[in-house]
Amino acid sequence: MAPIRVHGTPFSTAVGRVLATLYEKELEFELVAVDMKAGEHKKEPFLSINPFGQVPGFEDGDLKLFESRAITKYLAQEYADKGTQFKCGDSKTAAIIGVWMEVEAHQFDPAAAKLTWELAIKPRYGLNTDTAIVEEHEAKLAKVLDVYEIRLAQSKYLGCDCFTLADLHHLPNIQYLLGTQAKKLFDSRPHVSAWVDAITARPAWSKVLALQKQ
Amino acid sequence: MAPIRVHGTPFSTAVGRVLATLYEKELEFELVAVDMKAGEHKKEPFLSINPFGQVPGFEDGDLKLFESRAITKYLAQEYADKGTQFKCGDSKTAAIIGVWMEVEAHQFDPAAAKLTWELAIKPRYGLNTDTAIVEEHEAKLAKVLDVYEIRLAQSKYLGCDCFTLADLHHLPNIQYLLGTQAKKLFDSRPHVSAWVDAITARPAWSKVLALQKQ
Ligand SMILES: N[C@@H](CCC(=O)N[C@@H](CS)C(=O)NCC(=O)O)C(=O)O
Ligand SMILES: N[C@@H](CCC(=O)N[C@@H](CS)C(=O)NCC(=O)O)C(=O)O
Repeated sequence: MAPIRVHGTPFSTAVGRVLATLYEKELEFELVAVDMKAGEHKKEPFLSINPFGQVPGFEDGDLKLFESRAITKYLAQEYADKGTQFKCGDSKTAAIIGVWMEVEAHQFDPAAAKLTWELAIKPRYGLNTDTAIVEEHEAKLAKVLDVYEIRLAQSKYLGCDCFTLADLHHLPNIQYLLGTQAKKLFDSRPHVSAWVDAITARPAWSKVLALQKQ
Repeated sequence: MAPIRVHGTPFSTAVGRVLATLYEKELEFELVAVDMKAGEHKKEPFLSINPFGQVPGFEDGDLKLFESRAITKYLAQEYADKGTQFKCGDSKTAAIIGVWMEVEAHQFDPAAAKLTWELAIKPRYGLNTDTAIVEEHEAKLAKVLDVYEIRLAQSKYLGCDCFTLADLHHLPNIQYLLGTQAKKLFDSRPHVSAWVDAITARPAWSKVLALQKQ
């Protein structure tokens, strides 16, 4: 039995963050399917890992964690000597990487996740996309990406000149949105577009996409 | 000139997180007023600190940061040897504290911030509270606090038996909500209620409230 276990589906954006980090860190793990249609995430034993009943759930030996960004930060710290380093520079650079992690969580994700849901997920389930919500959140995401465009003209990646969790956390939503009309928001901004190309081309991310195809 | 400068108003929940952390860490700082009514946060020079045009902005010497939770984490790291330690235990406890920081950001704050806006801020500006939004988010917050009630029966604070940033980040919204009908959501849960008493009684937090009264 692998010591690291991820509970969830590779189609979940939150699970995708954790899987991408595990592959970047070259760690072995077991992906344990959670049957969300059967509501397994709202019942024991899943609730004893995540009392909020959301995927991912995560175990490393007897340590149980949830919340995707807490798990990725744990992996980066605990397995600092393995795989991708996710850092560059001193404590001041670390603080700036921290800022861009919070930007992903508080500026990018609220708009991007809504668009992922309306444009990518709902159609798969035969649900109707709400065009008013799409318009509102495309406008919000455009404003966020305007800031990114300026930032990425100064810095190869969001936090510094190296790929870090501040970039990685964006991958799952971006991947979904590239398959929708919202792709134009990324394509129309040259530095954002180059950054999207760089982060989606990472071998670790290809492995997450391969898991989705299994 | 103090090396640490916080730009914003102590009435902002996001600024409040940073101020509480500075007082816990016993650090000297200068609070620089931002005239939000005049739109100063949407213009230079503020935008060169936070390109998203929101308070707080933060400077420590030549380091410029924004996003309240990135600033508090920087202060906890950079000034690890000063004031409140904000940690206990090993790297596994640190990971669990990380989980509860993410819970604040992704489970608590979305519901609590909406209620703060509807119940505490809007009335001050003579705006009408939307009762449907209040009902929806009181129900959401109640579910989150049900999980907190179980957690706080096992652990004195959310992350571990010590006060950490996972607790501190809740203070500004909780303080506002205690002055509204949403107070009942905290009062009706004994462990949550004891935790609220403990964190709002911290001397550092009283200093933030004193700043609001100046
Ligand atoms: N903030 C959480 C979000 C987790 C989340 O929303 N997971 C979704 C799938 S992407 C889920 O389990 N949804 C089912 C539900 O909320 O009931 C994290 O980053 O882990
Ligand atoms: N995620 C940000 C939120 C900052 C924020 O929303 N600040 C509010 C005041 S609490 C603000 O500046 N609002 C004005 C605006 O968004 O235009 C943080 O934690 O610093």
